[in-house]
Amino acid sequence: VADIYTEDAKLLGSHAPAIVGKKNIGMAIGSLIKAGITQVGLKTIEVWGTDEILTEEGELSLATRDGKQIEKGKYVVIWKKADGHWKILRDFSNSDLPLPSGK
Amino acid sequence: VADIYTEDAKLLGSHAPAIVGKKNIGMAIGSLIKAGITQVGLKTIEVWGTDEILTEEGELSLATRDGKQIEKGKYVVIWKKADGHWKILRDFSNSDLPLPSGK
Repeated sequence: VADIYTEDAKLLGSHAPAIVGKKNIGMAIGSLIKAGITQVGLKTIEVWGTDEILTEEGELSLATRDGKQIEKGKYVVIWKKADGHWKILRDFSNSDLPLPSGK
Repeated sequence: VADIYTEDAKLLGSHAPAIVGKKNIGMAIGSLIKAGITQVGLKTIEVWGTDEILTEEGELSLATRDGKQIEKGKYVVIWKKADGHWKILRDFSNSDLPLPSGK
């Protein structure tokens, strides 16, 4: 799954520091899958860039295997063409959902 | 303050849907200032793009007037050159800090 990321990619999720490198990103994605989060919905909103670097804005949703939505949010992905293939250099996301009522 | 944003800009913060348009973004920034959040620290990490569109990755911190840090996070800003000036088209951010322990 992590092969879509460059070796030096960063996964820039919410409520955690950046996860750096394809290997670490692969482990993070593996944890999601093990937690039963196997349905990913992605919708591209807009794209800017060149034939070497693209920035994509979109909307995302995550759901469990049985269809329970656990996340709805936004993403920005920076794509880089490496060896003729588009790979993800930065994968940035946040949530549209309110913060849990911690206090 | 909002003049750095394009008319059709989007402020894509965490735990809320996108805030669309310079006027609405200006009101959102005004609310932060009224809440006493007046210190903004920004550090550019990397920039990609052309002389018309740039994507910037960085780190941010927000603090109150008296220096209390209330946010530490990451951002991606998409800059567009409009009428000879660089303006913000997308302002995307999330937090490095853990979620409040809601449950």
